[in-house]
Amino acid sequence: MKLKLILPLFLLLTYFTAFSQERTAGPTPDAKGTIKVSVMYPYAEGKNFNMDYYETKHMPMVAGFLGSNLIKYTIEKGIASGIPNQPMPFMAIGTFYVKSLSDYQAAIGPNRDAIRADFPNYTNITPVILVSEVVK
Amino acid sequence: MKLKLILPLFLLLTYFTAFSQERTAGPTPDAKGTIKVSVMYPYAEGKNFNMDYYETKHMPMVAGFLGSNLIKYTIEKGIASGIPNQPMPFMAIGTFYVKSLSDYQAAIGPNRDAIRADFPNYTNITPVILVSEVVK
Repeated sequence: MKLKLILPLFLLLTYFTAFSQERTAGPTPDAKGTIKVSVMYPYAEGKNFNMDYYETKHMPMVAGFLGSNLIKYTIEKGIASGIPNQPMPFMAIGTFYVKSLSDYQAAIGPNRDAIRADFPNYTNITPVILVSEVVK
Repeated sequence: MKLKLILPLFLLLTYFTAFSQERTAGPTPDAKGTIKVSVMYPYAEGKNFNMDYYETKHMPMVAGFLGSNLIKYTIEKGIASGIPNQPMPFMAIGTFYVKSLSDYQAAIGPNRDAIRADFPNYTNITPVILVSEVVK
Protein backbone atom coordinates (compact mmCIF):
# COMPACT_ATOMS: atom_id res chain seq x y z
CA MET A 1 0.00 0.00 0.00
CA LYS A 2 1.29 3.43 -0.80
CA LEU A 3 1.90 6.11 1.80
CA LYS A 4 -0.75 8.40 0.36
CA LEU A 5 -3.33 5.74 1.22
CA ILE A 6 -1.94 4.65 4.60
CA LEU A 7 -1.72 8.14 6.11
CA PRO A 8 -5.38 9.08 5.63
CA LEU A 9 -6.47 5.69 6.95
CA PHE A 10 -4.27 6.07 10.02
CA LEU A 11 -5.57 9.55 10.71
CA LEU A 12 -9.16 8.44 10.16
CA LEU A 13 -8.66 5.68 12.70
CA THR A 14 -7.13 7.92 15.39
CA TYR A 15 -9.83 10.52 14.71
CA PHE A 16 -12.65 8.06 15.43
CA THR A 17 -10.72 6.62 18.38
CA ALA A 18 -10.45 10.09 19.93
CA PHE A 19 -14.15 10.89 19.57
CA SER A 20 -15.40 7.45 20.56
CA GLN A 21 -13.37 7.63 23.81
CA GLU A 22 -15.36 10.70 24.77
CA ARG A 23 -18.65 8.99 23.99
CA THR A 24 -17.99 5.66 25.71
CA ALA A 25 -16.70 6.99 29.04
CA GLY A 26 -19.26 4.87 30.92
CA PRO A 27 -21.61 6.01 33.70
CA THR A 28 -20.71 9.46 34.97
CA PRO A 29 -21.40 10.85 38.46
CA ASP A 30 -23.45 13.62 36.81
CA ALA A 31 -25.94 11.22 35.24
CA LYS A 32 -29.52 11.77 36.44
CA GLY A 33 -30.56 8.92 38.73
CA THR A 34 -27.05 8.05 39.95
CA ILE A 35 -27.14 7.05 43.63
CA LYS A 36 -25.00 9.00 46.10
CA VAL A 37 -24.25 7.71 49.59
CA SER A 38 -22.92 10.66 51.61
CA VAL A 39 -21.28 9.98 54.97
CA MET A 40 -21.45 13.31 56.79
CA TYR A 41 -19.47 14.15 59.94
CA PRO A 42 -21.28 16.89 61.93
CA TYR A 43 -19.09 19.60 63.41
CA ALA A 44 -19.20 20.24 67.16
CA GLU A 45 -16.87 21.57 69.86
CA GLY A 46 -14.38 18.94 71.01
CA LYS A 47 -14.73 16.83 67.89
CA ASN A 48 -11.73 15.89 65.79
CA PHE A 49 -11.16 14.50 62.33
CA ASN A 50 -7.89 13.27 60.81
CA MET A 51 -8.31 14.06 57.11
CA ASP A 52 -5.01 12.46 56.14
CA TYR A 53 -5.97 9.07 57.61
CA TYR A 54 -9.47 9.35 56.14
CA GLU A 55 -8.15 10.08 52.65
CA THR A 56 -5.28 7.57 52.59
CA LYS A 57 -6.66 4.67 54.66
CA HIS A 58 -10.38 4.69 55.51
CA MET A 59 -11.97 5.78 52.22
CA PRO A 60 -9.78 3.53 50.02
CA MET A 61 -10.71 0.59 52.29
CA VAL A 62 -14.45 1.20 51.97
CA ALA A 63 -14.14 1.92 48.23
CA GLY A 64 -12.38 -1.43 47.89
CA PHE A 65 -15.47 -3.25 49.23
CA LEU A 66 -17.67 -1.75 46.49
CA GLY A 67 -16.01 -3.17 43.39
CA SER A 68 -17.41 -2.29 39.98
CA ASN A 69 -20.59 -0.84 41.51
CA LEU A 70 -18.53 2.23 42.50
CA ILE A 71 -18.50 4.98 39.85
CA LYS A 72 -16.25 7.25 41.93
CA TYR A 73 -15.92 8.65 45.41
CA THR A 74 -15.25 12.15 46.62
CA ILE A 75 -14.00 13.71 49.86
CA GLU A 76 -14.69 17.26 50.99
CA LYS A 77 -13.44 19.19 53.99
CA GLY A 78 -15.74 21.65 55.76
CA ILE A 79 -14.38 25.22 55.85
CA ALA A 80 -17.23 27.35 57.18
CA SER A 81 -20.95 27.83 57.44
CA GLY A 82 -22.40 29.78 54.54
CA ILE A 83 -24.67 31.62 57.00
CA PRO A 84 -23.09 34.26 59.29
CA ASN A 85 -23.02 33.42 63.03
CA GLN A 86 -23.99 29.79 62.44
CA PRO A 87 -21.61 26.93 63.17
CA MET A 88 -20.16 24.96 60.26
CA PRO A 89 -22.60 22.06 59.77
CA PHE A 90 -20.07 19.35 58.80
CA MET A 91 -16.33 18.84 59.32
CA ALA A 92 -16.06 16.42 56.43
CA ILE A 93 -18.18 14.50 53.94
CA GLY A 94 -17.24 11.35 52.02
CA THR A 95 -19.49 10.42 49.11
CA PHE A 96 -19.78 7.20 47.12
CA TYR A 97 -21.39 7.45 43.67
CA VAL A 98 -22.79 4.00 42.89
CA LYS A 99 -24.82 2.35 40.15
CA SER A 100 -27.03 0.31 42.50
CA LEU A 101 -28.11 0.98 46.09
CA SER A 102 -28.93 -2.68 46.75
CA ASP A 103 -25.48 -3.74 45.50
CA TYR A 104 -23.94 -1.08 47.79
CA GLN A 105 -25.87 -2.43 50.79
CA ALA A 106 -24.96 -6.04 49.92
CA ALA A 107 -21.28 -5.09 49.72
CA ILE A 108 -21.20 -2.99 52.93
CA GLY A 109 -23.30 -5.33 55.11
CA PRO A 110 -20.65 -8.03 55.73
CA ASN A 111 -17.96 -5.34 56.23
CA ARG A 112 -19.87 -3.01 58.57
CA ASP A 113 -17.95 -4.08 61.68
CA ALA A 114 -14.57 -3.52 59.97
CA ILE A 115 -15.69 -0.08 58.79
CA ARG A 116 -16.95 0.97 62.26
CA ALA A 117 -13.85 -0.42 63.97
CA ASP A 118 -11.76 1.99 61.86
CA PHE A 119 -13.71 5.12 63.00
CA PRO A 120 -11.61 5.76 66.17
CA ASN A 121 -8.48 5.85 63.98
CA TYR A 122 -9.55 9.19 62.48
CA THR A 123 -12.50 10.68 64.36
CA ASN A 124 -14.69 10.77 67.48
CA ILE A 125 -17.72 11.94 65.45
CA THR A 126 -20.75 9.72 64.77
CA PRO A 127 -21.66 10.36 61.14
CA VAL A 128 -25.09 10.77 59.59
CA ILE A 129 -25.64 9.12 56.22
CA LEU A 130 -27.77 10.46 53.38
CA VAL A 131 -28.78 8.30 50.43
CA SER A 132 -29.73 10.59 47.56
CA GLU A 133 -30.30 10.57 43.83
CA VAL A 134 -28.67 12.88 41.30
CA VAL A 135 -31.32 15.18 39.80
CA LYS A 136 -28.87 17.40 37.92
CA MET B 1 -4.55 21.48 -4.30
CA LYS B 2 -5.19 17.85 -5.08
CA LEU B 3 -7.56 15.67 -3.08
CA LYS B 4 -4.78 13.36 -1.85
CA LEU B 5 -3.23 16.37 -0.08
CA ILE B 6 -6.43 17.94 1.20
CA LEU B 7 -7.81 14.80 2.85
CA PRO B 8 -4.81 14.10 5.14
CA LEU B 9 -4.67 17.77 6.15
CA PHE B 10 -8.36 17.81 6.97
CA LEU B 11 -8.08 14.64 9.04
CA LEU B 12 -4.99 15.94 10.81
CA LEU B 13 -6.86 19.10 11.76
CA THR B 14 -9.92 17.26 13.13
CA TYR B 15 -7.61 14.86 14.96
CA PHE B 16 -5.87 17.66 16.86
CA THR B 17 -9.16 19.45 17.43
CA ALA B 18 -10.60 16.32 19.06
CA PHE B 19 -7.67 15.82 21.43
CA SER B 20 -7.15 19.49 22.30
CA GLN B 21 -10.81 19.75 23.35
CA GLU B 22 -10.20 17.07 25.94
CA ARG B 23 -7.10 18.79 27.29
CA THR B 24 -8.46 22.34 27.54
CA ALA B 25 -11.70 21.51 29.34
CA GLY B 26 -10.94 24.11 32.03
CA PRO B 27 -11.32 23.75 35.83
CA THR B 28 -13.14 20.56 36.78
CA PRO B 29 -15.32 20.04 39.88
CA ASP B 30 -13.00 17.19 40.89
CA ALA B 31 -9.93 19.42 41.19
CA LYS B 32 -8.46 19.49 44.69
CA GLY B 33 -9.13 22.86 46.33
CA THR B 34 -12.31 23.62 44.37
CA ILE B 35 -14.84 25.40 46.60
CA LYS B 36 -18.27 23.86 47.09
CA VAL B 37 -21.21 25.78 48.53
CA SER B 38 -23.87 23.24 49.52
CA VAL B 39 -27.35 24.47 50.37
CA MET B 40 -28.89 21.67 52.41
CA TYR B 41 -32.59 21.34 53.20
CA PRO B 42 -33.09 19.30 56.42
CA TYR B 43 -35.92 16.78 56.40
CA ALA B 44 -38.62 16.99 59.05
CA GLU B 45 -42.31 16.09 59.41
CA GLY B 46 -44.59 18.66 57.77
CA LYS B 47 -41.88 20.06 55.53
CA ASN B 48 -42.29 20.21 51.78
CA PHE B 49 -40.03 20.74 48.80
CA ASN B 50 -41.02 21.28 45.16
CA MET B 51 -38.12 19.74 43.23
CA ASP B 52 -39.50 20.77 39.83
CA TYR B 53 -39.60 24.47 40.75
CA TYR B 54 -36.17 24.21 42.42
CA GLU B 55 -34.62 22.61 39.33
CA THR B 56 -36.25 24.75 36.65
CA LYS B 57 -36.54 28.17 38.37
CA HIS B 58 -34.64 28.66 41.63
CA MET B 59 -31.27 27.06 40.88
CA PRO B 60 -30.94 28.54 37.36
CA MET B 61 -31.68 32.00 38.87
CA VAL B 62 -28.95 31.69 41.52
CA ALA B 63 -26.52 30.15 39.02
CA GLY B 64 -27.15 33.16 36.77
CA PHE B 65 -25.86 35.50 39.50
CA LEU B 66 -22.50 33.66 39.65
CA GLY B 67 -21.24 34.23 36.10
CA SER B 68 -17.89 32.76 35.09
CA ASN B 69 -16.98 31.97 38.73
CA LEU B 70 -19.40 29.01 38.55
CA ILE B 71 -17.77 25.75 37.41
CA LYS B 72 -21.02 23.79 37.63
CA TYR B 73 -23.92 23.15 39.96
CA THR B 74 -25.60 19.94 41.03
CA ILE B 75 -28.95 19.02 42.57
CA GLU B 76 -29.64 15.89 44.57
CA LYS B 77 -32.87 14.55 46.04
CA GLY B 78 -32.83 12.77 49.41
CA ILE B 79 -34.16 9.21 49.26
CA ALA B 80 -33.38 7.70 52.68
CA SER B 81 -31.10 7.65 55.65
CA GLY B 82 -28.17 5.29 55.26
CA ILE B 83 -28.61 4.25 58.90
CA PRO B 84 -31.59 2.03 59.82
CA ASN B 85 -34.27 3.65 62.01
CA GLN B 86 -32.84 7.14 61.55
CA PRO B 87 -34.74 9.86 59.66
CA MET B 88 -33.41 10.98 56.29
CA PRO B 89 -31.11 13.93 57.09
CA PHE B 90 -31.88 16.10 54.03
CA MET B 91 -34.76 16.36 51.55
CA ALA B 92 -32.60 18.05 48.94
CA ILE B 93 -29.15 19.57 48.43
CA GLY B 94 -28.10 22.11 45.82
CA THR B 95 -24.35 22.58 45.35
CA PHE B 96 -22.41 25.30 43.55
CA TYR B 97 -18.82 24.47 42.54
CA VAL B 98 -16.97 27.79 42.29
CA LYS B 99 -13.43 28.99 41.61
CA SER B 100 -13.45 31.68 44.30
CA LEU B 101 -15.38 31.94 47.57
CA SER B 102 -14.95 35.73 47.79
CA ASP B 103 -16.29 36.14 44.23
CA TYR B 104 -19.24 33.92 45.20
CA GLN B 105 -19.99 36.06 48.25
CA ALA B 106 -19.63 39.28 46.23
CA ALA B 107 -22.09 37.96 43.63
CA ILE B 108 -24.66 36.63 46.12
CA GLY B 109 -24.61 39.60 48.56
CA PRO B 110 -26.59 42.09 46.44
CA ASN B 111 -29.05 39.32 45.40
CA ARG B 112 -29.68 37.75 48.82
CA ASP B 113 -33.14 39.30 49.20
CA ALA B 114 -34.25 38.06 45.77
CA ILE B 115 -32.97 34.56 46.58
CA ARG B 116 -34.72 34.42 49.97
CA ALA B 117 -37.93 35.85 48.55
CA ASP B 118 -38.03 32.85 46.19
CA PHE B 119 -37.85 30.25 49.02
CA PRO B 120 -41.64 30.12 49.70
CA ASN B 121 -42.19 29.26 46.02
CA TYR B 122 -40.71 25.79 46.55
CA THR B 123 -40.21 25.03 50.26
CA ASN B 124 -40.99 25.83 53.89
CA ILE B 125 -37.58 24.54 55.03
CA THR B 126 -34.82 26.85 56.29
CA PRO B 127 -31.62 25.50 54.72
CA VAL B 128 -28.19 25.09 56.31
CA ILE B 129 -25.21 26.01 54.16
CA LEU B 130 -21.84 24.28 54.14
CA VAL B 131 -18.79 25.84 52.51
CA SER B 132 -16.29 23.08 51.81
CA GLU B 133 -13.19 22.34 49.81
CA VAL B 134 -12.67 19.38 47.47
CA VAL B 135 -10.00 17.05 48.94
CA LYS B 136 -10.53 14.27 46.40
